[in-house]
Amino acid sequence: MSDKPLVGILMGSDNDYEVMVEAALALKSFGVPFEMMVSSAHRTPERTATYVRSARGRGIKVLIAGAGAAAHLAGVMAAETTLPVLAVPIDSTALQGLDALLAMVQMPAGIPVATMAIGKAGARNAGLFAVQILSVADESLAQRLADYKVQLVAGVEVKAKALAERMVKDGI
Amino acid sequence: MSDKPLVGILMGSDNDYEVMVEAALALKSFGVPFEMMVSSAHRTPERTATYVRSARGRGIKVLIAGAGAAAHLAGVMAAETTLPVLAVPIDSTALQGLDALLAMVQMPAGIPVATMAIGKAGARNAGLFAVQILSVADESLAQRLADYKVQLVAGVEVKAKALAERMVKDGI
Amino acid sequence: MSDKPLVGILMGSDNDYEVMVEAALALKSFGVPFEMMVSSAHRTPERTATYVRSARGRGIKVLIAGAGAAAHLAGVMAAETTLPVLAVPIDSTALQGLDALLAMVQMPAGIPVATMAIGKAGARNAGLFAVQILSVADESLAQRLADYKVQLVAGVEVKAKALAERMVKDGI
Amino acid sequence: MSDKPLVGILMGSDNDYEVMVEAALALKSFGVPFEMMVSSAHRTPERTATYVRSARGRGIKVLIAGAGAAAHLAGVMAAETTLPVLAVPIDSTALQGLDALLAMVQMPAGIPVATMAIGKAGARNAGLFAVQILSVADESLAQRLADYKVQLVAGVEVKAKALAERMVKDGI
Amino acid sequence: MSDKPLVGILMGSDNDYEVMVEAALALKSFGVPFEMMVSSAHRTPERTATYVRSARGRGIKVLIAGAGAAAHLAGVMAAETTLPVLAVPIDSTALQGLDALLAMVQMPAGIPVATMAIGKAGARNAGLFAVQILSVADESLAQRLADYKVQLVAGVEVKAKALAERMVKDGI
Amino acid sequence: MSDKPLVGILMGSDNDYEVMVEAALALKSFGVPFEMMVSSAHRTPERTATYVRSARGRGIKVLIAGAGAAAHLAGVMAAETTLPVLAVPIDSTALQGLDALLAMVQMPAGIPVATMAIGKAGARNAGLFAVQILSVADESLAQRLADYKVQLVAGVEVKAKALAERMVKDGI
Amino acid sequence: MSDKPLVGILMGSDNDYEVMVEAALALKSFGVPFEMMVSSAHRTPERTATYVRSARGRGIKVLIAGAGAAAHLAGVMAAETTLPVLAVPIDSTALQGLDALLAMVQMPAGIPVATMAIGKAGARNAGLFAVQILSVADESLAQRLADYKVQLVAGVEVKAKALAERMVKDGI
Amino acid sequence: MSDKPLVGILMGSDNDYEVMVEAALALKSFGVPFEMMVSSAHRTPERTATYVRSARGRGIKVLIAGAGAAAHLAGVMAAETTLPVLAVPIDSTALQGLDALLAMVQMPAGIPVATMAIGKAGARNAGLFAVQILSVADESLAQRLADYKVQLVAGVEVKAKALAERMVKDGI
Repeated sequence: MSDKPLVGILMGSDNDYEVMVEAALALKSFGVPFEMMVSSAHRTPERTATYVRSARGRGIKVLIAGAGAAAHLAGVMAAETTLPVLAVPIDSTALQGLDALLAMVQMPAGIPVATMAIGKAGARNAGLFAVQILSVADESLAQRLADYKVQLVAGVEVKAKALAERMVKDGI
Repeated sequence: MSDKPLVGILMGSDNDYEVMVEAALALKSFGVPFEMMVSSAHRTPERTATYVRSARGRGIKVLIAGAGAAAHLAGVMAAETTLPVLAVPIDSTALQGLDALLAMVQMPAGIPVATMAIGKAGARNAGLFAVQILSVADESLAQRLADYKVQLVAGVEVKAKALAERMVKDGI
Repeated sequence: MSDKPLVGILMGSDNDYEVMVEAALALKSFGVPFEMMVSSAHRTPERTATYVRSARGRGIKVLIAGAGAAAHLAGVMAAETTLPVLAVPIDSTALQGLDALLAMVQMPAGIPVATMAIGKAGARNAGLFAVQILSVADESLAQRLADYKVQLVAGVEVKAKALAERMVKDGI
Repeated sequence: MSDKPLVGILMGSDNDYEVMVEAALALKSFGVPFEMMVSSAHRTPERTATYVRSARGRGIKVLIAGAGAAAHLAGVMAAETTLPVLAVPIDSTALQGLDALLAMVQMPAGIPVATMAIGKAGARNAGLFAVQILSVADESLAQRLADYKVQLVAGVEVKAKALAERMVKDGI
Repeated sequence: MSDKPLVGILMGSDNDYEVMVEAALALKSFGVPFEMMVSSAHRTPERTATYVRSARGRGIKVLIAGAGAAAHLAGVMAAETTLPVLAVPIDSTALQGLDALLAMVQMPAGIPVATMAIGKAGARNAGLFAVQILSVADESLAQRLADYKVQLVAGVEVKAKALAERMVKDGI
Repeated sequence: MSDKPLVGILMGSDNDYEVMVEAALALKSFGVPFEMMVSSAHRTPERTATYVRSARGRGIKVLIAGAGAAAHLAGVMAAETTLPVLAVPIDSTALQGLDALLAMVQMPAGIPVATMAIGKAGARNAGLFAVQILSVADESLAQRLADYKVQLVAGVEVKAKALAERMVKDGI
Repeated sequence: MSDKPLVGILMGSDNDYEVMVEAALALKSFGVPFEMMVSSAHRTPERTATYVRSARGRGIKVLIAGAGAAAHLAGVMAAETTLPVLAVPIDSTALQGLDALLAMVQMPAGIPVATMAIGKAGARNAGLFAVQILSVADESLAQRLADYKVQLVAGVEVKAKALAERMVKDGI
Repeated sequence: MSDKPLVGILMGSDNDYEVMVEAALALKSFGVPFEMMVSSAHRTPERTATYVRSARGRGIKVLIAGAGAAAHLAGVMAAETTLPVLAVPIDSTALQGLDALLAMVQMPAGIPVATMAIGKAGARNAGLFAVQILSVADESLAQRLADYKVQLVAGVEVKAKALAERMVKDGI
C-alpha cells in the first residue's frame, strides 16, 4: 500500500476535530493512508465540491464527512461523487446530535449516504467501515480486520476479568 | 411592478408541488411575480447552484425552498447567495417532517435560512413572508399586507358567526 | 444610513441577553442601526403590542424576537405587524429548546414567522438575515454581504491551515 | 345557577370545533352555563384580548382555550386575565399535537396555564376541570362530581361485563 | 382567611422539594395557607389515597402533585377526589422530564389533571394557579392577583432598564 | 396444571381488547389458565386495588396490564402487590404510544414494572413472558417453550421459502 | 437457598458497572445468589451465546442485561434462551438512553424482553423483579418482598418527617 | 462479472419484502448479482450467524440488513463478519421507524453498521451504496454510477419541464 491517501475525511468545522480524529486513528491503526481537512458545506461550498469532484481521480476510495447541526456536508459531498460517503453526526447543538443524525441519515433515494452513530463511536466506526470497504479488494486488510475482531474479544475478556476482581474487592 | 420575477421558488421534487403551490398562490394574490421550478440539492447540484448564483443579478429578491427528508435544499441555496432564503419543511417520510424541519432550521452561524412551519401552512407563510420582505421597500405592498390583516380578522368573524349558528343548530 | 434604528430586537427575559447579543453584534458589524429591549409576550403584553404596532411607523424594517419555553413572543409580534418577524428559539428549559422551536416555527397560515436555529447560532443568523432583508433595497449592504461571504471562506481556510498544522504536531 | 355563562371556551379555528365541543358537552352535562366562540391569538389578537379582559367583569369564572400548531391562544389569554385558563392542545399538524402541547404547557413562571391531554380527551377533561374549579365554591356541583365518579365506576363495570361476555363468545 | 390549609402539596420524593417549594412560596406570597408533604403513588399508595380522600372534608380546595419519571402521583390523586389536581412534572431522569410530562398530561377522559411546565417554573405556576382557582370565590385574592400582574409589568420594566444600561456599558 | 387462573390480565379500557387478546391467546396456546378483565387505574381505583391485593392469595402468579395514554395501570398494580407485573403500552392517542411507553417503563426504584413493546407484539410477548416466568418452576412449560422456539425457526424457514418462490415469480 | 447463582447479570461494557451494580445489590439484599460479568452482543457474540445457552442447565432462573446505545444485548440473549430476560437501558450516548430504551423495549412478537427504566432505577428494579419472579415458587422470598414493601412505606414516612422539619426550619 | 452473488440481502420478516425489494432492484439495474432471504436476528439466530460467517468465503462482498422495531439484525450480522454491513430501518411499529433507526445507527465503537434512511428510499440507497462499494475495485461499475448520476439530472429536468407545463395549465 502506497502513501497516497485512500480515504478523505472532511469536517464542517475545526470544532469537530476531537470527534473526527477517531476516524483518523482507526485508519492509522490499519495502515490506511488518509487525508483530513476542514471544509464546510455552507461556508465553502466551492472548496468542498472541488475537493470531492477530484477525489476519485486522485485515488481516493472512500469519503468521510463529520458535521453537526443541520449537517448537510455528507449529502452535499454525495451529490458530487459516486464514491461511498460515510457520515458522522456530531452533537454540537442543544438538540444533542438528533438534528445532525436526521439531516444525514434521511437522504432521498438516488444519493446514498451511510450514517454512523453520533459522536466519537461513530467517527471510530467510520474509519473502520472505510477499512471494511477497502478490504473488499485487499486481502491483507481483510486479514487485519479479522485480527481486529480477535482483539475485540480479548479486550472484553480482559475487562471481564478486571471487573470480576473489582467485584471481589467491592464485596459484590 | 413589472412581470420580471421577484421571487424564486425551488422544490426538491415534483412531489412537493401540492405543498409549494401554496407559496405561489400567496404571491399571486399580492400580485408579486415569481418563478417556480424543480431542482434538487442532491440530484442536480449544478442546476441548483447555477440558478441561485444568478438570481440576484436577474432581479430576484427572495428565494423559497421546499424539501422533505434530509432537506438540504435551503441550506445549499443559502451557501450560494446573499439573498434571503425561506425554507418550507415537507412531511414526506415516516418521521412526518421532523427530519426536514431540523435539517432546515438548525443552520450554523453565518449562513442564515428562515424556516416556516411544516407543510402547506409553511408554504403559504413563505409566500406571505416574501411579500413582507418586499414591502420593506414597497409602500403599496405594505398597504396590501395591512389590508390582508383586516381580511384575516373579517374571515375569523365570519367563521365565528357560522360556528355560533352551528352551535344553535346542534343544540350546544 | 442614518442612526435611526432599522431593526428592533425584543427578548422575553433579560436571561436571553447572552444569546440575543449575537444578533446585535451581527447588525453592528454591518453598520445597521438597531434597538434592543426586554419585553415579554405574557408578562407585558401591552408593552410588546405597543412597541410592535408603532414599529413600521418609526422606520423599523425588521423585527427579531428571542424567547425560550412556550415561546410566544414572535407569534404575538407577528399578530400585530406586517413587518417581517424573525424568531430565535432559546434553550432555557429541560426540553433544551425543542419547546421554543416548535412554539415559534409551527405558526398557522396567515401569520408568518421566520425561525432560525436554537441559541447563539440562530441569534447571529437572525442579525444576518435582517441585513439580507435590508439588502433587497440597499446595494451597499448587498456588497457588504458579498464581502462577508468571502470572509467566511477565508476564515475556513485559516482554520483548515491551523488544523493541518495541529495534525502534524499530533502526529495524525 | 343562572344562565349567565360561567365558563368561556375559545378556539383558534373553526376546525377545532369537533374537539372543543367535548368541553361544551361536559359543562352542559353538569348544567354549567358557558359560551363558546372562535377567536385567534394571531389573526384576531384584539378580539381575543378584548374578550378575555372583560371576562371576569362579566361573571366568567374559568376560561378554556383550544388550539393546534404553535398554540399561543391559552398563553395569550393568560397574559390578559387572572382567571384560571385551561388549555387543550389539538392535533392539527404533521407533528400530531406535540407542537401544540409544548407551546401550551411550557409557560414561564408568573403566567400559569393548566394543560390537558391532546385532543378530545383533553377537551372533555377541560370541561370537567372547569366544573371542579367551580365546585370549590358550589356544594351542589361538588355533589354532582361525586355522582359522576360513581357513574364512571358503573360504566367500567358495564363494559367489564360486556367484555366477559364477548370473551366467552370468542372462546377466549 | 383562617390558617386552615386550603391547598395540599404532595411530592413523590423528598428530592422534589427544591422544585416544589416554589409552589409553596407562591402560595405564601398570597397568604394562602397550605400543607406540603412527601407521599408516593407507588411506595405509599395507602398514605396517598387516605390523604386525598379526606382532603375535601378537611377544607382543602386544591391539590398539587409534583413527581418525576413515570409520574403517576397526580393521576392517582385525581382518581380519589373531585378536587382540582394540578400536576408539576419534574426533570429527574435521563429523559429530562419528558417522561413525567407525558405521564401527567395525557390523562384519559373522565379524570382531569391540570399540568404545568416542567420544573421550577411549573411549580411556581401551580401555586399561582391554585390562587387563581381560589380567587373564583374570593374577591380579595382576585385583587391581589391583579396587583401581582402589575408587579410583573414593573419587574420587566426594571429589567429592561437594567439591560439598557448594560448595553451602553458593553458598547452594544 | 389446574384450571385455576395463574395469570391475571387487566386492561384500562374495553378499547384495549383487540390488543390484549394477544396476551390471552399466547397463554392459551401454552395451556396456562388466566383471567382477563377491564379495570381502570383512574376510573375504578378500588376495583383495581382490590383485585390486585387479593391476586397472590388466589393463586395468581403473574399480572399483565395493558393501557394507553398516561398509562398508570401497571404502576398502580405494582404498588399493591409483590407479584411480577408486565406492562403493555397501547397506541391510543395522537402521540402513538410514546406516552404510554414512558408512563410504564420509567418506574422509580423500588416498584418494578416489566415493559413490553407497544401494541400487539407487546401483548403477545407479555403472554409469552408470563409463561417464561411460570417455567422457572414448571419443567413442562420450559419444555413447551423450547418447542415454541423450534417452531419459530420452522416458521421463518417456511416464510423464507415462500419468499424465494415469490422472488422467482416476480423475476427478482 | 444454596450459593449456586440463580440470576445471571450481563453488561455490554465495564462502563456499565456503576449502573448494573444496583441490580446486584438488590439481589444481595434478598440473599439471592447471582453472577455478573461483561459480555458484549457485538464484540463477543460467541461468549454471550455460550453463556446464555448454558444458563438454564446450570440452574440460572433469570437473566438481566444492561447495555447502552444500540442496545442489542437483551434481545440477543432472549434469542438464545427461554429464560426470562430483563433489560436495563443505559444512558451512554448523546441521545440519553432513548436509543437503548427503544432498542430493548420494541422487541418483535415471539421473543419477549422485559424492559426496566433507564439507568440506576432500572437496574435496581431489574434485581427486584428477578426476586419477584423467583418468589413465584419460593414462599420465603414472597415474604421478604412483603417485608420490603413495608420498609418502603417506612422509608417514605421517615423522609416525610425529615421534610416537615426542614420546612419548619426553612420557614415554609 | 459472474453470476455468483456479490451482495447478500437479509430481512427480518417477510413483511419487509416490499421495502427491501428496492435494494434488489437497484442492484439488478447495475447488473450486480445478489441473493435475498428472510432471516431473523431473534427467531433464527443460528441461521443468521451461519449465513453471515460463511458470506466472505462464498464471495459475498457486501451485506444488507432490513428490519423494523428493535432492529438488531444489522448489528448481529456485523458482530459475525468483517464485511461491510448496510442497514435499512423499516417503519413497522407505532413509533414509525424511529425505533429501528436508533437500534441500527447507534452502534458502539468497534462494530460499524452503515445506516440508510427509513423505508424504501433507504432500501434503494442500500443497493446503490453496495454498488458504490463494489465500484472501488470495479471500473465498469464506477462508469455505470457516473452514468446513473447523469440520468438523475435528466430525470429532474424531465420532471421540471412537466411541472412547468402543469403550472401553465393550472394558471399558476
